[in-house]
Amino acid sequence: MTFDPDATGLAYRHYDPDEVVMGKRLEDHLRFAVAYWHSFAWPGGDPFGGQTFDRPWFPDTMDGARLKAEAAFEMFDLLGVPFFCFHDADIRPEGASFAESRKNFEEIIGIFERKMATSKTKLLWGTANLFSHRRFMSGAATNPDPDVFAWSAATVKNCMDATHRLGGQNYVLWGGREGYETLLNTDLKAEMDHMARFLSMVVDYKHKIGFKGTILIEPKPQEPTKHQYDYDVATVFGFLQRYGLETEVKLNIEQGHAILAGHSFEHEIALANALGVFGSIDMNRNDYQSGWDTDQFPNNVPEVALAYYEILRGGGFKTGGTNFDAKLRRQSLDPEDLLAAHAGAMDVCARGLKAAARMLEDGTLETMRRERYAGWKTPASTELLSSDLATIAAKVEAEGIDPQPRSGKQEILENIVNRYV
Amino acid sequence: MTFDPDATGLAYRHYDPDEVVMGKRLEDHLRFAVAYWHSFAWPGGDPFGGQTFDRPWFPDTMDGARLKAEAAFEMFDLLGVPFFCFHDADIRPEGASFAESRKNFEEIIGIFERKMATSKTKLLWGTANLFSHRRFMSGAATNPDPDVFAWSAATVKNCMDATHRLGGQNYVLWGGREGYETLLNTDLKAEMDHMARFLSMVVDYKHKIGFKGTILIEPKPQEPTKHQYDYDVATVFGFLQRYGLETEVKLNIEQGHAILAGHSFEHEIALANALGVFGSIDMNRNDYQSGWDTDQFPNNVPEVALAYYEILRGGGFKTGGTNFDAKLRRQSLDPEDLLAAHAGAMDVCARGLKAAARMLEDGTLETMRRERYAGWKTPASTELLSSDLATIAAKVEAEGIDPQPRSGKQEILENIVNRYV
Amino acid sequence: MTFDPDATGLAYRHYDPDEVVMGKRLEDHLRFAVAYWHSFAWPGGDPFGGQTFDRPWFPDTMDGARLKAEAAFEMFDLLGVPFFCFHDADIRPEGASFAESRKNFEEIIGIFERKMATSKTKLLWGTANLFSHRRFMSGAATNPDPDVFAWSAATVKNCMDATHRLGGQNYVLWGGREGYETLLNTDLKAEMDHMARFLSMVVDYKHKIGFKGTILIEPKPQEPTKHQYDYDVATVFGFLQRYGLETEVKLNIEQGHAILAGHSFEHEIALANALGVFGSIDMNRNDYQSGWDTDQFPNNVPEVALAYYEILRGGGFKTGGTNFDAKLRRQSLDPEDLLAAHAGAMDVCARGLKAAARMLEDGTLETMRRERYAGWKTPASTELLSSDLATIAAKVEAEGIDPQPRSGKQEILENIVNRYV
Amino acid sequence: MTFDPDATGLAYRHYDPDEVVMGKRLEDHLRFAVAYWHSFAWPGGDPFGGQTFDRPWFPDTMDGARLKAEAAFEMFDLLGVPFFCFHDADIRPEGASFAESRKNFEEIIGIFERKMATSKTKLLWGTANLFSHRRFMSGAATNPDPDVFAWSAATVKNCMDATHRLGGQNYVLWGGREGYETLLNTDLKAEMDHMARFLSMVVDYKHKIGFKGTILIEPKPQEPTKHQYDYDVATVFGFLQRYGLETEVKLNIEQGHAILAGHSFEHEIALANALGVFGSIDMNRNDYQSGWDTDQFPNNVPEVALAYYEILRGGGFKTGGTNFDAKLRRQSLDPEDLLAAHAGAMDVCARGLKAAARMLEDGTLETMRRERYAGWKTPASTELLSSDLATIAAKVEAEGIDPQPRSGKQEILENIVNRYV
Ligand SMILES: [Co+2]
Ligand SMILES: [Co+2]
Ligand SMILES: [Co+2]
Ligand SMILES: [Co+2]
Ligand SMILES: [Co+2]
Ligand SMILES: [Co+2]
Ligand SMILES: [Co+2]
Ligand SMILES: [Co+2]
Repeated sequence: MTFDPDATGLAYRHYDPDEVVMGKRLEDHLRFAVAYWHSFAWPGGDPFGGQTFDRPWFPDTMDGARLKAEAAFEMFDLLGVPFFCFHDADIRPEGASFAESRKNFEEIIGIFERKMATSKTKLLWGTANLFSHRRFMSGAATNPDPDVFAWSAATVKNCMDATHRLGGQNYVLWGGREGYETLLNTDLKAEMDHMARFLSMVVDYKHKIGFKGTILIEPKPQEPTKHQYDYDVATVFGFLQRYGLETEVKLNIEQGHAILAGHSFEHEIALANALGVFGSIDMNRNDYQSGWDTDQFPNNVPEVALAYYEILRGGGFKTGGTNFDAKLRRQSLDPEDLLAAHAGAMDVCARGLKAAARMLEDGTLETMRRERYAGWKTPASTELLSSDLATIAAKVEAEGIDPQPRSGKQEILENIVNRYV
Repeated sequence: MTFDPDATGLAYRHYDPDEVVMGKRLEDHLRFAVAYWHSFAWPGGDPFGGQTFDRPWFPDTMDGARLKAEAAFEMFDLLGVPFFCFHDADIRPEGASFAESRKNFEEIIGIFERKMATSKTKLLWGTANLFSHRRFMSGAATNPDPDVFAWSAATVKNCMDATHRLGGQNYVLWGGREGYETLLNTDLKAEMDHMARFLSMVVDYKHKIGFKGTILIEPKPQEPTKHQYDYDVATVFGFLQRYGLETEVKLNIEQGHAILAGHSFEHEIALANALGVFGSIDMNRNDYQSGWDTDQFPNNVPEVALAYYEILRGGGFKTGGTNFDAKLRRQSLDPEDLLAAHAGAMDVCARGLKAAARMLEDGTLETMRRERYAGWKTPASTELLSSDLATIAAKVEAEGIDPQPRSGKQEILENIVNRYV
Repeated sequence: MTFDPDATGLAYRHYDPDEVVMGKRLEDHLRFAVAYWHSFAWPGGDPFGGQTFDRPWFPDTMDGARLKAEAAFEMFDLLGVPFFCFHDADIRPEGASFAESRKNFEEIIGIFERKMATSKTKLLWGTANLFSHRRFMSGAATNPDPDVFAWSAATVKNCMDATHRLGGQNYVLWGGREGYETLLNTDLKAEMDHMARFLSMVVDYKHKIGFKGTILIEPKPQEPTKHQYDYDVATVFGFLQRYGLETEVKLNIEQGHAILAGHSFEHEIALANALGVFGSIDMNRNDYQSGWDTDQFPNNVPEVALAYYEILRGGGFKTGGTNFDAKLRRQSLDPEDLLAAHAGAMDVCARGLKAAARMLEDGTLETMRRERYAGWKTPASTELLSSDLATIAAKVEAEGIDPQPRSGKQEILENIVNRYV
Repeated sequence: MTFDPDATGLAYRHYDPDEVVMGKRLEDHLRFAVAYWHSFAWPGGDPFGGQTFDRPWFPDTMDGARLKAEAAFEMFDLLGVPFFCFHDADIRPEGASFAESRKNFEEIIGIFERKMATSKTKLLWGTANLFSHRRFMSGAATNPDPDVFAWSAATVKNCMDATHRLGGQNYVLWGGREGYETLLNTDLKAEMDHMARFLSMVVDYKHKIGFKGTILIEPKPQEPTKHQYDYDVATVFGFLQRYGLETEVKLNIEQGHAILAGHSFEHEIALANALGVFGSIDMNRNDYQSGWDTDQFPNNVPEVALAYYEILRGGGFKTGGTNFDAKLRRQSLDPEDLLAAHAGAMDVCARGLKAAARMLEDGTLETMRRERYAGWKTPASTELLSSDLATIAAKVEAEGIDPQPRSGKQEILENIVNRYV
């Protein structure tokens, strides 16, 4: 896959990894990652139908797993992506016992390690699948059964070890089952305490093994649960503060999950930046009309531009990147579909980031934002903020203060954005 | 309005204020309040049509305001409600200046004071309307113009004074305009800082004047704004923690706002209890199909029962109560409609609370909940929680831990609830 | 399972099949059916996790299928339900060819036939699963490949034969894949034409084989597709009219699908009655907060009462009935959960229907409805309807017509409903 | 406002009315219209706040109305738009009687007539406001009071006369109150019959006065009502068929209403084209996160392109056009905001239409769509469609038909679209 703006076939038309934007190569800005699970392990099922994809590596055996690893690194190379991400359950068959699963896992990690010695593709993040197996049906860290907490802790330990061994830049926790189906059988307080304790162990273990990457939580409001504790950025931030973890943990924000929680993607990113907990993104969109997580490849440049605008305003990615936690539509059966989906998505992101950079460099939006709040930059307003209600009330009457509204200029601002996208 | 289970006309069929439930009179459990704004000041408009109601007190003059106060206390007496709630803007016409508005306000507060000397109806909470006038269009505490912050602070001061003077048991802040229409013109961080500073002033002023009531924030995710900072219980809790206010401020939770934020009402109450910030409720439902705040009187006993179940589990109301922030449908033109709506709603709440009390006293639900988490009450699980990932992982393998799922019994629990409602 | 209002264990507390309501036994009013698929074939998976249930009949073999049939009829007898429903794919393993699948199917139908000779449980409806297998991923009747149309037609033929053979009272079509994922690859017009032609063949075949049951379409707006052609009652009615099928086909309305389409369940039933196409119901609710089809057992009596009120107003079921297209929550692992879920749901329906019958018999609601429209029962209004714009305009000015609004009394009506539920 | 791609201030950057696309001037393709109501009559209120805008013509007097007409035509000229649209209630104050309102209305129509003699701006459509005044609170044609039906008929007569007199190209009906707040007080069947009779009178009157324009219905699912009878395109089509009006009436489709009904805008357009009832569009978007009708100016080029793609595929507008039923955000106080909003929206539409034209001319999408259905172009498939279930079933077994799925190529198609937008 090469950069060729005039290509008729499969190519990058907008994503030139070496193009320099705001002093940095596009590749280093965008930090693309391919998701192992959706791209290589997902069979194409949905709640009303089963497998549609037919891949040679689907037999859930160690042979299948080895073949899958071959195929994955072949595609990483073909796409030239700098990163990938994986769960333990994506890469190895479940064993008959925890120990056997671990051995299976470690063998594949060994294969990854050898592949990565020569591949340009590095590990953006590792994570543990604590939601698919029936043992997790009532939660992992929040399970009513302490044995599941233990199993989950042991699993995360192994996944963190593997992530560290492979030089991963982050470690992600998505609590897909950390929530409830019915409040009637749920002890909210105990479950949140257990979840926090679990997270503290993760942070401690990170330091113990000297892992320098970032611990990331990925919020989602619901699905598969009726309610997930990591609802959105604001909720997770409140949780982290409550348990004193807000300086240790950052967020991996997914467009689709933002939508499900009633927010725009750019809102969630801007809020995480304002709260100092922005980490990484899953750049896969949800269909606005579908009430579930459709995990589609991004295709709307103006929307993507607004997301990268907030990322760039916040200083860009540090250890984070742009992961495609995106799956093909289940009718997109062909290998070509998988390549085209990634290439198209990367082009959309490249266009979005370049537009965002131009908006930021040209500065009109930020100038207008600053001017709107200019009144707050005066000594009088500083005094106001350090005053008290009674003093202010006296002043309002004494000075006959009578504030007059000024236009918020929303349409003009939207027009400005449209000059860049 | 009397209690008469067999009445054919307007009466309470289920709400007997003196009925004793769990050792307390129903009136003291439910602590009903009528909302001045919807009941007396709302003209029946919606986004596609104007006034439908025709009340003698509608002329927006001091004469109208005095007549309105008469009508309000007449209805409070007729209903025999123990409480009411009001905004400044509901009770007085806007003056030509801040000072004139304050004088208008204080005159009506004086009328209230005299009425309350003989009425059984007390003040549940006062609040300031910082959202209807065009000066608030871009926010009150979060307005880009510091003068609006000042105006808002002065207004709240006067409303707190009035609430204190009338013996109000709480003071509520609903930040209807504290949010944004477009992120493009918004400085999230500055606005949140200003909002927090404003809230701190409110808390300080409470202590300064010796107000013993509770300061309450009412969360709502959106509408009129696209995004409101006080999104839901979890968000407000995170905000309070961030600015060190979580022990000073509690929450007033509205059913309709819970729905808009993607939560059940009982979830928001249970979460507030788990976080120690439950305060009071606005018991007005939203239509699940309508994407806006319909503020309807409650009419579904099973849903209401689940809300009171969480309130009773948390120990019941302290300074809070059951406010009907509910408006008639705009086609319900007649005075009889207003009385019937309140009577019906109070009956629904009485049925709900009595069912909740029976569920709690019979104890089956709580026994089943406790049993589900019984595994966490052992020394081994306490040890587990104080352990670390590596130790746990070793133990999982050494002991061959293999957790087996147990039924969550959701349908059985729902059947149990249905024995009581 | 017996009727015992005071039972402490599993029993019907409200559903006494022999209780006579409005001159008919409850069993004959409600006509309950158990759904074979969710109750016996669904393994408990969701989009983020696999099988949780563990039933002895799960091996997808003919032995498994035979065991499943035993278990099913055992449960039908235990519950004493008058009906069940099934898809071909629920009851038999897929064969290596169409012919083998048919043979598998027919063997199990034979077993059903023998069981039904002695069981009280009859067949409410049969249906074909034209959505789970990957061959249907792009539609059945609307597939771009005519071979899939043919396969689907052949499948429906066999399912109709089986339904007829078993004395089924209806035959249902749910077009789960008759819609699209993206408009970009879809020929709307051709697909709708093919769907109509398919439906005509079904109607013709019904007459050809002398099947006296009702052909039913089950509307759903989306999921698994982004858009389903049978969106809701109004859409299906328009479709039937367009192809001249509105007298041949009626509707099976599901509560959950009504919700997904933005309607209340009672709306869809009332509309189907108004259009003369009401047939049957799937009485399984969706969670209002979850944007997907949760297919939960009903548990809210007031809501269920409003649905049966519209059914009774329309004259009650003819060939239709109350099917539970409901699945256990995937954490409800135990056989007891399945029995309790059905028993609880049947009790909720019995309470709802009895409340609805009382509302109808007492007549207050219908009297008030009639009175509201009384103005339309005058000769003048009949004349008005047969007039024309110009004549009416002249009359409005000549007579100085100035209509005054009258209260819609919504809260009073809701209070009346609450006297019965 | 001139076309100037490099303008720094207010200008059209993409909309050159004279640019020829697919053999037609852009102006003749897009047929832009300004909406009188939102642009000149809306004061900036929302459900939680009142007037924010301050226009010299706001006094609701005939002087105000005359000044408003001046301002409107000044802006039409400034923008150079070919069309405008209006309701009766937008342009004149309500009189003390029907006759007085009519006289007010006719005077302003006279002013319009004189203005239009020299302005390039013509009338796209006229319409009657049958929803704002309290007399319409329970419906217009569907009101329980026949006098309201009469009043509404008389009003529409006058609005049709005015539309005809001004050379309007369409006449629109939006039934904002033709629905219900509660099913409990509603006679669905009678109301739909009355609505159909009303529509038939409109059609008859059109022919009587020789109006050559198109009668259009604008669907919307809800808001202000809980349910509106003209829910969406499919529902209105079914309604028209039921009353034999499907050849007389077409549809005006609004993006925001499509969204509220759970559809994409392009879906509604494509469906209307497939059903032969496409007429015109209201090109104002809803915010996907807000559950109400936000009526914002369009700003997303890729979405707009898909809408125009369906319009061009259907042959483009005939009497219809692109109306902006869009309102400024209520914080956008300045006249400049109104101009900028329209200019930005027209540029977005121009970009969208040009992209759509290129997609259509290049033909890749249509070629791929045709190829996907190529199987249906064979004699065998024609035979299949005229066959019957039994014959087909025999054939499937005899020929061992075993259809294999083919990729739907959704991501590739989306990539292709992204080459044009
Ligand atoms: Co996702
Ligand atoms: Co993700
Ligand atoms: Co509300
Ligand atoms: Co409230
Ligand atoms: Co369903
Ligand atoms: Co169903
Ligand atoms: Co609209
Ligand atoms: Co419109």
